[in-house]
Amino acid sequence: MSWVAAIVGYRGYSGAELVRLLGRHPHVTPVLLDHREDAAARPHAGTLRHAPCTPDAVRAEGISIVFLATPAEISLELAPTMLSAGARVIDLSGAFRLRTPAAYSAWYKDAHTQPDLLAEAAYGLPEFCRERIPAARLVANPGCYPTAANLAIRPLVEAGVIDRAAGVVCDAKSGVSGAGRKPSLKTSFCEVTENFSAYAVLHHRHVPEVLMISGLEEREFSFTAQLVPVARGILETIYFRTATPAGADDLLAIYARRYAGEAFIRLYPAGHLPDLHAVAHTNYCDIGVTADQATGRAVVVSAIDNLVKGAAGQAVQNMNLLLGRPEAEGLL
Amino acid sequence: MSWVAAIVGYRGYSGAELVRLLGRHPHVTPVLLDHREDAAARPHAGTLRHAPCTPDAVRAEGISIVFLATPAEISLELAPTMLSAGARVIDLSGAFRLRTPAAYSAWYKDAHTQPDLLAEAAYGLPEFCRERIPAARLVANPGCYPTAANLAIRPLVEAGVIDRAAGVVCDAKSGVSGAGRKPSLKTSFCEVTENFSAYAVLHHRHVPEVLMISGLEEREFSFTAQLVPVARGILETIYFRTATPAGADDLLAIYARRYAGEAFIRLYPAGHLPDLHAVAHTNYCDIGVTADQATGRAVVVSAIDNLVKGAAGQAVQNMNLLLGRPEAEGLL
Amino acid sequence: MSWVAAIVGYRGYSGAELVRLLGRHPHVTPVLLDHREDAAARPHAGTLRHAPCTPDAVRAEGISIVFLATPAEISLELAPTMLSAGARVIDLSGAFRLRTPAAYSAWYKDAHTQPDLLAEAAYGLPEFCRERIPAARLVANPGCYPTAANLAIRPLVEAGVIDRAAGVVCDAKSGVSGAGRKPSLKTSFCEVTENFSAYAVLHHRHVPEVLMISGLEEREFSFTAQLVPVARGILETIYFRTATPAGADDLLAIYARRYAGEAFIRLYPAGHLPDLHAVAHTNYCDIGVTADQATGRAVVVSAIDNLVKGAAGQAVQNMNLLLGRPEAEGLL
Amino acid sequence: MSWVAAIVGYRGYSGAELVRLLGRHPHVTPVLLDHREDAAARPHAGTLRHAPCTPDAVRAEGISIVFLATPAEISLELAPTMLSAGARVIDLSGAFRLRTPAAYSAWYKDAHTQPDLLAEAAYGLPEFCRERIPAARLVANPGCYPTAANLAIRPLVEAGVIDRAAGVVCDAKSGVSGAGRKPSLKTSFCEVTENFSAYAVLHHRHVPEVLMISGLEEREFSFTAQLVPVARGILETIYFRTATPAGADDLLAIYARRYAGEAFIRLYPAGHLPDLHAVAHTNYCDIGVTADQATGRAVVVSAIDNLVKGAAGQAVQNMNLLLGRPEAEGLL
Repeated sequence: MSWVAAIVGYRGYSGAELVRLLGRHPHVTPVLLDHREDAAARPHAGTLRHAPCTPDAVRAEGISIVFLATPAEISLELAPTMLSAGARVIDLSGAFRLRTPAAYSAWYKDAHTQPDLLAEAAYGLPEFCRERIPAARLVANPGCYPTAANLAIRPLVEAGVIDRAAGVVCDAKSGVSGAGRKPSLKTSFCEVTENFSAYAVLHHRHVPEVLMISGLEEREFSFTAQLVPVARGILETIYFRTATPAGADDLLAIYARRYAGEAFIRLYPAGHLPDLHAVAHTNYCDIGVTADQATGRAVVVSAIDNLVKGAAGQAVQNMNLLLGRPEAEGLL
Repeated sequence: MSWVAAIVGYRGYSGAELVRLLGRHPHVTPVLLDHREDAAARPHAGTLRHAPCTPDAVRAEGISIVFLATPAEISLELAPTMLSAGARVIDLSGAFRLRTPAAYSAWYKDAHTQPDLLAEAAYGLPEFCRERIPAARLVANPGCYPTAANLAIRPLVEAGVIDRAAGVVCDAKSGVSGAGRKPSLKTSFCEVTENFSAYAVLHHRHVPEVLMISGLEEREFSFTAQLVPVARGILETIYFRTATPAGADDLLAIYARRYAGEAFIRLYPAGHLPDLHAVAHTNYCDIGVTADQATGRAVVVSAIDNLVKGAAGQAVQNMNLLLGRPEAEGLL
Repeated sequence: MSWVAAIVGYRGYSGAELVRLLGRHPHVTPVLLDHREDAAARPHAGTLRHAPCTPDAVRAEGISIVFLATPAEISLELAPTMLSAGARVIDLSGAFRLRTPAAYSAWYKDAHTQPDLLAEAAYGLPEFCRERIPAARLVANPGCYPTAANLAIRPLVEAGVIDRAAGVVCDAKSGVSGAGRKPSLKTSFCEVTENFSAYAVLHHRHVPEVLMISGLEEREFSFTAQLVPVARGILETIYFRTATPAGADDLLAIYARRYAGEAFIRLYPAGHLPDLHAVAHTNYCDIGVTADQATGRAVVVSAIDNLVKGAAGQAVQNMNLLLGRPEAEGLL
Repeated sequence: MSWVAAIVGYRGYSGAELVRLLGRHPHVTPVLLDHREDAAARPHAGTLRHAPCTPDAVRAEGISIVFLATPAEISLELAPTMLSAGARVIDLSGAFRLRTPAAYSAWYKDAHTQPDLLAEAAYGLPEFCRERIPAARLVANPGCYPTAANLAIRPLVEAGVIDRAAGVVCDAKSGVSGAGRKPSLKTSFCEVTENFSAYAVLHHRHVPEVLMISGLEEREFSFTAQLVPVARGILETIYFRTATPAGADDLLAIYARRYAGEAFIRLYPAGHLPDLHAVAHTNYCDIGVTADQATGRAVVVSAIDNLVKGAAGQAVQNMNLLLGRPEAEGLL
């Protein structure tokens, strides 16, 4: 069996990663939809088929899946068009992730123009939302920070092991590709190299996605987004106090139970922690734990590649669910 | 007036920074004491005077101050020798920072061989320990992480603004020079570039220095040390809950009162945060604050150059105090 | 059909790349031979089979091919052992690349202990030495610098288009992984970041490999090896004067004829030049040309990934030739 | 004695370096002229005096020297204005470096609107043009690449030691700050990190400056400009053949004679070569030599900080000459 999957925004970093991943998928042929001419292609960018970004082209090319690797405002415009042409849509922007138009406008500072689609969209974090995805027409692919945060936090919330009154701190560090490919002073080489900076404290628009999935309340959750001078990768250091005495092995056992059978979660033995190199160019989320049982302090470190498990890889994982393929196909 | 100041360990990163800083000081002539031949000098390393690392040389060269930019075990051996030759000693290692031999052996995994000197040493964080330094024979120059942490935390503890039951989180990121110049796989270029990793969680040996100065208890303080792919700089993101409602301006006012007249503390207006570039090659500690008064969550970011305010610059600041010079001389 | 291929030195950068590449090969099962315990493995280094580095293990495991990703002195010792156990050997060191023991000792400052194997070895640059490789017992995998240089220079020498009296300059830049994984001050992060340096001028031990394949004489060839602050990649800028008037398109036509049908050579249209990103993690050698026909000045830029086409990828290409498989299998 | 010196373009990288250097100069007070609001200042950007970029302000502030750290087209507009207000001008752009309007329009692709000023301007490479600078009204501060190239090449041309028929190759590598502070895809962090690329081969607009000072003909000189993933620094590797047999010491002796008494030229002993770290944040040009007397091949490596000796530092050196101050004042 074989499907055609289209990519809009293939020149951005997430889009280019989609091109790379779909190029390896045994049952999918990628097509590039030309929405905007934003940058000259490299001489050897490849020989993939191009088509215009229109409903007619979707039908003519027999496209089953459209990936929108576009800004939220473009996704709001393209999603209904592509759905009306009969394709299913996996949107990598924040356009369809939150639950209500009110939440969207509070965090994205803009009115939501597609409230019906927002209500319909399935949130594409397979490890926690796997049931709704296969039948969905529209999948909201999760944000990069929330993916690493929710995979680390939700099992602990479910297990009731966190002292929520003391709060949860998530200190997040991201590579620069997370800011997109559009040139800006903040992502210029000379401003980033030999530097490290916090750019969003407490109020990042990814916060409501963490609350939505993890089950924490906003007042319980302190989040900082910081820029590391690397191209790709997210590492989050998560601090909390245990509600009852628990050592690292107790916490690891919670993860092991919750993630039994998951292809993309790797747990580290106590005393070991993930780093960005371990997950680079992979769809894994690596998790390590340190805890001091005597004082109740605990620290979890989770790491992903922001362009893979945090974007394109997870999108392909969702595509596999939509197509009824093995979830890890083309991703290992 | 003029003094001779000697540097042991001048080929390490902190030692080389001392050479650079003392070369600009208007009243001090640096001399290099050759303790070990560890690396070939650069062709243009300079024309400073060398002498052997012996008491006789200290006397013959008229050395008033000896900087020990050496590992703790070497400092334990050299400090009494240099003191006996009549010099005053500023030690950049951890040998004399803690208050008791028991604390030292608990965190440094080694017996302390100079308990009398440990008792005698003045802790060299001028902003909080300025009174004892001018008359000291031996100054324990603070660790890099504790300098950034204590300057950010102690004013808040003094002011009683922290909800200590909820704990304080200090998520610390350091450039690679903090690990010293000795080659190791962990600090090899290919292992560090495009990477980010946590290397000490909860149990770093700098933790007791933070507790000692900040006034926090160990169970209240969660600390992680992480490696950023930059050569120099420390940025610490500090999370806590306020004991009573307080906004960013309230917290900034506490700092402003406490640090009035301090030459090396710079406060950022609410909404701005420091980064590593702002403090690189300077003796400043920059502090910025974000707080959400409604929920009690607060975040402080402090940044220093680990080789300057975190090592050599603070050592020169201490030297100025020992010599009765203006504290900022040669450092602005 | 299926073969077992063993890797000695799998913890080095080239060895780890071999592990990665063989893990994707559809007809080869990799086995790791434990020659020395040099570094702790990562928690998720994988689940590959290990065996001792002995002739008995080679027979017991049914190993057809042994890759030696080891220093030349270890390769000199292991190659005869592995051959005697019936395996064929692909050596990634410089031990068997040159033609005579005298040449080896002149450039490697050591006597060659296996002159018969040196005489027997096939030089593994498939684009120019493809005939001898399939039947070889021992393949000398080319050096990284010579691979990029010879692929750029030899077609031009063959075509007689270079004014050899004026000489050929090869200004080569390499990522730090080319220096190996053993920690040293020269490859420490703080020494490399924000730096650029020349470390071998005119007399690098890769020079004789370039002369051997390109056909140039030593007096005609000026070579500098330089360290770029990146983990992987080699870019060589090659300067010469044309013997007769020739523009970029004329030179590109020479390459196009010579490399017709080659899977791993990519030519850039006139006005475009390769960079390291274009070849990273691939087995391609990318070539671009600029020429000023009026004055006879010409510049060729060639780029490879030093760990792939410059080491492990080319070794797999050679393995495919030994096994009678399609040359690009597992490499695209 | 004391002078007021003004900086236009103080937010660019060269302009910011001027601010830093003038802040240390014992006899000069810097003033910032606000020509365009291009970027928000850092919170602690300093407390320097600002004034509008007008002739009236030049007179009102008593400004003696105006540094133009602006693009060529802005310098062409501002230079006559500032001169008419009685200030002397040091221009860091390419507007006044070449000798004729024809040369300017050939390389800068634009008509020169101030031919009289072009004729009047003194080229500000003190080591070779020191006589004309003190009396000049307008100094054309040299380009960064030509500074490193001419300091390395011209003494050898003067000495007649180069076989000019074989040509001179200058393989130049620059840090990213050389491309200016304006955001662009080519200087974005993700495009530059872990990359290396050639961006101008044979036809860079700095070539005519090298020809003008070195005395080489265009057909004799091959130049490539390449981007290194570092913020600052230029290293040039220069290849030639000696006209008569000469070893490294012979070539070093030529430099030693030519540069006797020069404050900012440092020669390396044979066998040693400069790197970027050695010159970072300094006004030095470091030069090292390798030569193979038997074959006539020779390689010279020269290194500067592109923002100091390649821009702001050399501009201050020129200012000292204009003001009759010691040439190295404020620069060591």
